[in-house]
Amino acid sequence: MLVRHAVVLAGGSGTRLWPASRQTRPKQLLSIARAGEPLIAGAIAIGRAIAHDRVLVVTAKAQVEATQLSSPNVEIVAEPIGRNTAAAIGLAAAILAVRDPDAVLAVLPADQHVRDRAHMAEVLDVCLAAVERDDSIALVGIPPTRPETGFGYLEMGAGPSDGLRQVLRFVEKPDAQHAQAYLASGRYLWNAGIFCLSAKRALTELDAYLPHVGRAVRAIAADPSVAAYEYAALPSISFDHAVMEKTDRVVAAPAAVGWNDVGSWTAIPDVRGTDKTGNATIGEVVVIDGSGNVVVSDDATLITTIGVSDLVIVKSGDAILIVPRDQAQRVREVVEALAARGLTRHL
Amino acid sequence: MLVRHAVVLAGGSGTRLWPASRQTRPKQLLSIARAGEPLIAGAIAIGRAIAHDRVLVVTAKAQVEATQLSSPNVEIVAEPIGRNTAAAIGLAAAILAVRDPDAVLAVLPADQHVRDRAHMAEVLDVCLAAVERDDSIALVGIPPTRPETGFGYLEMGAGPSDGLRQVLRFVEKPDAQHAQAYLASGRYLWNAGIFCLSAKRALTELDAYLPHVGRAVRAIAADPSVAAYEYAALPSISFDHAVMEKTDRVVAAPAAVGWNDVGSWTAIPDVRGTDKTGNATIGEVVVIDGSGNVVVSDDATLITTIGVSDLVIVKSGDAILIVPRDQAQRVREVVEALAARGLTRHL
Repeated sequence: MLVRHAVVLAGGSGTRLWPASRQTRPKQLLSIARAGEPLIAGAIAIGRAIAHDRVLVVTAKAQVEATQLSSPNVEIVAEPIGRNTAAAIGLAAAILAVRDPDAVLAVLPADQHVRDRAHMAEVLDVCLAAVERDDSIALVGIPPTRPETGFGYLEMGAGPSDGLRQVLRFVEKPDAQHAQAYLASGRYLWNAGIFCLSAKRALTELDAYLPHVGRAVRAIAADPSVAAYEYAALPSISFDHAVMEKTDRVVAAPAAVGWNDVGSWTAIPDVRGTDKTGNATIGEVVVIDGSGNVVVSDDATLITTIGVSDLVIVKSGDAILIVPRDQAQRVREVVEALAARGLTRHL
Repeated sequence: MLVRHAVVLAGGSGTRLWPASRQTRPKQLLSIARAGEPLIAGAIAIGRAIAHDRVLVVTAKAQVEATQLSSPNVEIVAEPIGRNTAAAIGLAAAILAVRDPDAVLAVLPADQHVRDRAHMAEVLDVCLAAVERDDSIALVGIPPTRPETGFGYLEMGAGPSDGLRQVLRFVEKPDAQHAQAYLASGRYLWNAGIFCLSAKRALTELDAYLPHVGRAVRAIAADPSVAAYEYAALPSISFDHAVMEKTDRVVAAPAAVGWNDVGSWTAIPDVRGTDKTGNATIGEVVVIDGSGNVVVSDDATLITTIGVSDLVIVKSGDAILIVPRDQAQRVREVVEALAARGLTRHL
């Protein structure tokens, strides 16, 4: 009997949403896409829809407490140290395989936004069925809506079955010209890191391509007391790179679900909408004579602007960021500058 | 024996420096021109220089406590309600005349910045000497450095003595063309509201032009318990309008002392200087790739900017303001908008 489980990967820290995201408050714990709901709650909700209450969250040891607070009644596995997705997925697969040798996993990143969760659950059902039928590794791909150069792409081939097609190739972040061509061709999907596979398949593939990872995660699942030692020795490599790009079992299903990676502050208008003046605001904000602004305040502070447009303005805790919207990716320069100046309490 | 006193007028509230200035924290209590020193301390320091410890501060009843905290060891007279400078100067003159019939007063606004205090004290000495000699009303005028349309001007005539000249005319805030002509002529000074006169002369002039004010302030000086009733009934009118524009006893001395009225956030670069990147900052601020910004933070919060220029950014307490530098005077629109929306806790 195959039993479905959802594995929510909450290992990220992320500086692109500073000052809201901090070392102690990663992106998935921010309530930025829906009011009052952290991003991780969306992944958990989808997980519950496809796997009932069998949702396992893998997160950093330092973030277990905050994750518990944001997501009560969810099982949490702590990584002693961040080691990317090959190790995290291996650990989840090994733990679930001990408990349930026929476990089937739907892997969901914790730090994305999915507008249509019911639709995402339906597509995951298609993927899980393919796993149960063919022992496939079945990805959910996002039909691209713009020539994005910040994502990986999946080149799609013929379909083995309804809704699923072979993945011919994984493409790393392309240049603008290639991204435009991929968008125009209709044969590419964004790789959102959402996929399904059996626990056994995950471990078998790791044994083939990263045998020390396969061994280590099994050892940790058998005896958690060795985790600190074994896990720290693992390579920091993604499951995509280590396994999926090498195996020929990979299929994908497209999911036009209103997906957003919330990769920078400029995503806020997309996920939250704008008011009638064209500004996207969260918290207590008064915008006078301006449009195209993204203004985010934590509860305590009023932000007022007069006569400015197309700015990102964020107040969170003890820090404020102001940057033109078209330069929002430069927030990492702030993080680097603060680290260089020893202002680490703001990181 | 004529005895010199300094009267510091601290009645203003002022919205032009919101969010730092609030109803409960007027401009003169802000440490914006010199680090760690409220503006009023500068006026008191000049007062002490010319009148030893005989400094009297006139302020609003609601601000007595905050004024005491910022200016220990200074005598404070509380106005039951704000009634502009004719009433405030009358009250100070009446109180000092009871104590010392031959009191001579140097009147100093509390909310200005004077870079060269020693020079200002010297000019006030010249003015006080004229008061003691001729019973003049002797103003300190500021030689204009730009065609400012926001100030009143004094048109100067011939000089009765060294350093002093007759004031032919008070000019209200002029238009740009007139301001340019005044600047070019060399015959005009800015009226900074700094002047000297005897307590007797102040009361005599009030008796002549505002007899009910003269009567009321004498009554309050004789019996402070009637202040609440008597003072509230007084007209809200400036001493300039009520007296100085009408009498022919007015002389003025120019004082090129680095005077600044700190009338908006754009004054900060003038009074505090700019760093090598052309930004004027107060508090914990990191500016990356930008110039011409005025960035002010209270102690608690880091402000970071990337790629923005010529903005005023102020964080104070529970509010943040962002406005282009050339629109800084629009801060009053914020104050009005907040009042209209009932967000009075931020005012």
